Amino acid sequence: MSLGDLLFGKPLATYEDSEQRLGALSGIGVFGLDALSSAAYGPEAALTLLIPLGALGIHYVVPISFGIIALLVIVFISYRQTIAAYPGGGGSYTVARENLGTKAALLAAAALIVDYILVVAVGISAGVGALVSAVPSLQPHTLAICLGILAAVALVNLRGVRETGNVFMVPTYAFIVCLLGAIGLGLVKAFLSGGHPTPVIPPNPFKSAATTAGAWVLLQAFSSGCTAMTGVEAVSNGVRAFREPAVESARRTLTAIIGILILMLGGIAWLARAYQVGASEPGQPGYQSLLSQLVAAVSGNGVFYYLTMGSVVVVLALSANTAFSDFPRLCQIVAGDGYLPHAFSSRGRRLVFSHGIYVLTFLAALLLIVFGGVTDRLIPLFAVGAFLAFTLSQAGMVVHWKRLGGRGAWQSMFINGLGATATAVTLVVVLAAKFLEGAWVTVLLVPSLLILMFAVRRHYDTVARELQLDTPLDLTHLKPPIVIIPIQSWNKIAQKGLRFALNLSIDVHVLQVKIGDQSEDLRGSWCHLVERPVQELGLPVPRLTVVESPYRLVFAPILDFVTGLARKHPDRYLAVLIPEMVEGHWYHYFLHNQRAAVLKALLLVKGNRQINVVNVPWYLAE
Amino acid sequence: MSLGDLLFGKPLATYEDSEQRLGALSGIGVFGLDALSSAAYGPEAALTLLIPLGALGIHYVVPISFGIIALLVIVFISYRQTIAAYPGGGGSYTVARENLGTKAALLAAAALIVDYILVVAVGISAGVGALVSAVPSLQPHTLAICLGILAAVALVNLRGVRETGNVFMVPTYAFIVCLLGAIGLGLVKAFLSGGHPTPVIPPNPFKSAATTAGAWVLLQAFSSGCTAMTGVEAVSNGVRAFREPAVESARRTLTAIIGILILMLGGIAWLARAYQVGASEPGQPGYQSLLSQLVAAVSGNGVFYYLTMGSVVVVLALSANTAFSDFPRLCQIVAGDGYLPHAFSSRGRRLVFSHGIYVLTFLAALLLIVFGGVTDRLIPLFAVGAFLAFTLSQAGMVVHWKRLGGRGAWQSMFINGLGATATAVTLVVVLAAKFLEGAWVTVLLVPSLLILMFAVRRHYDTVARELQLDTPLDLTHLKPPIVIIPIQSWNKIAQKGLRFALNLSIDVHVLQVKIGDQSEDLRGSWCHLVERPVQELGLPVPRLTVVESPYRLVFAPILDFVTGLARKHPDRYLAVLIPEMVEGHWYHYFLHNQRAAVLKALLLVKGNRQINVVNVPWYLAE
Repeated sequence: MSLGDLLFGKPLATYEDSEQRLGALSGIGVFGLDALSSAAYGPEAALTLLIPLGALGIHYVVPISFGIIALLVIVFISYRQTIAAYPGGGGSYTVARENLGTKAALLAAAALIVDYILVVAVGISAGVGALVSAVPSLQPHTLAICLGILAAVALVNLRGVRETGNVFMVPTYAFIVCLLGAIGLGLVKAFLSGGHPTPVIPPNPFKSAATTAGAWVLLQAFSSGCTAMTGVEAVSNGVRAFREPAVESARRTLTAIIGILILMLGGIAWLARAYQVGASEPGQPGYQSLLSQLVAAVSGNGVFYYLTMGSVVVVLALSANTAFSDFPRLCQIVAGDGYLPHAFSSRGRRLVFSHGIYVLTFLAALLLIVFGGVTDRLIPLFAVGAFLAFTLSQAGMVVHWKRLGGRGAWQSMFINGLGATATAVTLVVVLAAKFLEGAWVTVLLVPSLLILMFAVRRHYDTVARELQLDTPLDLTHLKPPIVIIPIQSWNKIAQKGLRFALNLSIDVHVLQVKIGDQSEDLRGSWCHLVERPVQELGLPVPRLTVVESPYRLVFAPILDFVTGLARKHPDRYLAVLIPEMVEGHWYHYFLHNQRAAVLKALLLVKGNRQINVVNVPWYLAE
Repeated sequence: MSLGDLLFGKPLATYEDSEQRLGALSGIGVFGLDALSSAAYGPEAALTLLIPLGALGIHYVVPISFGIIALLVIVFISYRQTIAAYPGGGGSYTVARENLGTKAALLAAAALIVDYILVVAVGISAGVGALVSAVPSLQPHTLAICLGILAAVALVNLRGVRETGNVFMVPTYAFIVCLLGAIGLGLVKAFLSGGHPTPVIPPNPFKSAATTAGAWVLLQAFSSGCTAMTGVEAVSNGVRAFREPAVESARRTLTAIIGILILMLGGIAWLARAYQVGASEPGQPGYQSLLSQLVAAVSGNGVFYYLTMGSVVVVLALSANTAFSDFPRLCQIVAGDGYLPHAFSSRGRRLVFSHGIYVLTFLAALLLIVFGGVTDRLIPLFAVGAFLAFTLSQAGMVVHWKRLGGRGAWQSMFINGLGATATAVTLVVVLAAKFLEGAWVTVLLVPSLLILMFAVRRHYDTVARELQLDTPLDLTHLKPPIVIIPIQSWNKIAQKGLRFALNLSIDVHVLQVKIGDQSEDLRGSWCHLVERPVQELGLPVPRLTVVESPYRLVFAPILDFVTGLARKHPDRYLAVLIPEMVEGHWYHYFLHNQRAAVLKALLLVKGNRQINVVNVPWYLAE
């Protein structure tokens, strides 16, 4: 078993694709971690903005959460429809492309691409941040742990979709069971105590109110809480990863993810109010996450607390996996339309789109390294991309239904229209609220990416136009090429080159570049060594040219000679035949000049359409 | 004027060599800095070992110095003879090769090579160390200053020998004038005061004697003082750098260097005794170099003191220049005999042996970086190489005179024999005294280098044997090659390749590798696109082979096909024709796969003697 097999698994044949598909259950681990893990920070993000309201803030958490859940349901319905309407996958990009045009589609794609890169860095960083605050001795290794997790997630994804589903099933279900268990326990206790349960461990006390609730504060809290919705689009991008019937499986996975997420969001909001748990100021001494306070209030500081919080940390760190599932698929679909490099559409040894995984890993690692593994400052950035994609996707669905017409179309149009409006409003609020905090970076990045994608497409179009050929092989003006061999001295390599040249053409030029007085002049022995044997066979004699190079340049005289011949015979192909010794060992590299390699490169870069290069290798017997 | 011209000067033609030669005077700056700068540390090294003797030690400095000067004179006479006997240069290496055999010669060369690398690092580091102890605020930049000086010296040397001579003339003569001036002033003052001058600034007081003078201590002091002799061989290595009459110029330069050195060594020793100046413990608080104490005692702490000490610092830092003059020449001569890579014998744009300069710069920089710019620990290493070379050189001269015979031969043999014995004894003492301090590194390095040099020669011999050809061109079994073109789809690149292939041979195979369902099958259109037009012209039809690649490998099927054909036709040449698109801009690199480049490399590495590669480039018009 080779190292590659051990690391990445045995190569899979293309026809094994169907065996690699996901079922509805393992789909949750592959596509659901981003959405589900946001239960751990969405409600907290909303409550953090309500801190200035003091104890009053806690009363708004339930209505705000219900607003978020309502929006979530609309977006869910929309993506459920998208899955059925576009079973080829591509989610927002495909919907927008089919209904709103290329520019809107690329806008959605660019937004999601930026979003996914951020999600990987922020998710891993958040998980490691929680781990480090629990085990402070790990603090100095923050970046190393982040990069280690990134590498592990990338590796698992490179091993194929099915393996990814299997690997991530365990932490996903542990998280779901623990968190829903805690919420259930809390609900039971609250119910038994008549709605006023006594916390096992009392949460942080509220500060006195500094302000009263205004519309802008509530809107900001709502838009911050909406970060809980990122990741909802994931399944619709990857419909083709599911086992047949793919649409059915994908929809079941999406329904399960959203159902669980709604339970979590609703439960957390209701319990926060029942147990009077508010957010505490992040970065301040005594900070404790909302979930940590809540679980401690419900169940105390026992084993269950540590199990639950541990699963939260793991799921946060692994939420990057959703991006790893979607980013390569999205890039593949965009690359298929010619707006990203073709490499994104080629499948690796395990049938995944490896180049997407490489690029995502590289960019996320870069972000982590630049920010030293602490990416708090990136959090404002990453809801922007998702909500831009949501809005475009739902707007696209409105057009889709309008075009399709028929029964129930108006109803669907209304739902999607409502969703589009709501997500658009949220997008504007997020942008306005977080613009100076960093959302402006996204506003710069997305258009840049857009411009890049158009440039890529333009280049591919140019190339395709230039290369396109529908007519049969043109055989006019076929003439044997003029062959040129640079030779330094008479030896077996030179003989092999000359023999090969005589095979190719009757028009052979031999060029000797004389540097100082180091090399013998071939003119003296040419008649005896070459001319006579060739004449005896009645073949045309190769012409020898000896060029002096007073400045000891080797390549310039050869290039001059070749381009000179090319100008003299504009209707002929030229073949520069380069005899080259192939080193048996890498360390012999230093013992011979690399003139053949340099000459080949120079001829390619400085050459023209007439000039071709023939490489005649010589292998040492040793 | 190009950047290259600005940095390195305009290229020089080979015939301009004679204008680049040195006169006797500028020769001192090129070859003399190593020897002359050793006046700054040789006497101090001897006196440091006499510290335990207290005030008594100062009495031994004059006899020890005279011993060193006597040895210096013997070695000088020997190298003076060597210059005349071997005007081709190469010094110890050439003498040993002609008289003692290849092994002894390579031993001398290896010793000197190691010595020169150390001299560069230690010289620069010593100069910068002196500078930093005078201006402590520069301390944190020690390594950067070292590397800056190294780069500057390398750059000057790359600009050619004549320029080097001109540039280094000024600091060399400033040093000579200042130091000889200080010595002369001291001698006059001592003479006027009847041998007991009053120091302007009193030197450090002596510690009380801890031990009495034993033979081993005196021998060690002598051998340490002998470091003053390194660099004496320099001129004999580079006779060819001098203007005609080269032997005369080189001998004049050598005589001047040795004469000045003797004046300095003798003067310093005599003044040290007259002014009662001893060495102080290096690395201890209150440390002051011998020269600094001496100049201060003679002339006080005025401008002259700072001028003199400044010139000492500069000359120490620039003593690396001698190695830069000799190392490349030595390597060139050894490479000419095939024991070092041929690259060492090719001349750069300014007629110097650039590769030697590159290698020396790289290795010295490596040493400086590894030791952080402080190379005190390397000092014990570097007299070993020099004295090994001296011994071999003088032993070689003994054999030379014996072989030559004639009048005066016995006399010369005696002098050289005495020199060989004395330097051999010194070598043994240095080795014994400094073995544990680091001389063992040299004892390991020199034989390793020797083994490497023999391996290089063996490799070159093998290659030469394999390539050697004295017979005329063999034209038996000439057959046109079998041409193979891998084609992905029908376009203009494919057409150009196919046209070129049909020019080369009547035996053309086209290979399509089908990956999954991505590419169209060429079989459908082959008859229409290719077969019919070729048949119409009456040419043999290219054969199309389509290979499915279930594991999406591109290169393996092509390699299999090519090697399969090669096995089937063992008497034929194969030409794999690779149509390649040449990118106009570097950033287009990411937009196209690099299959052509990878395939070329694979065919070269995994190919055999039958397989040749033809590169048909396609240039985009954009």
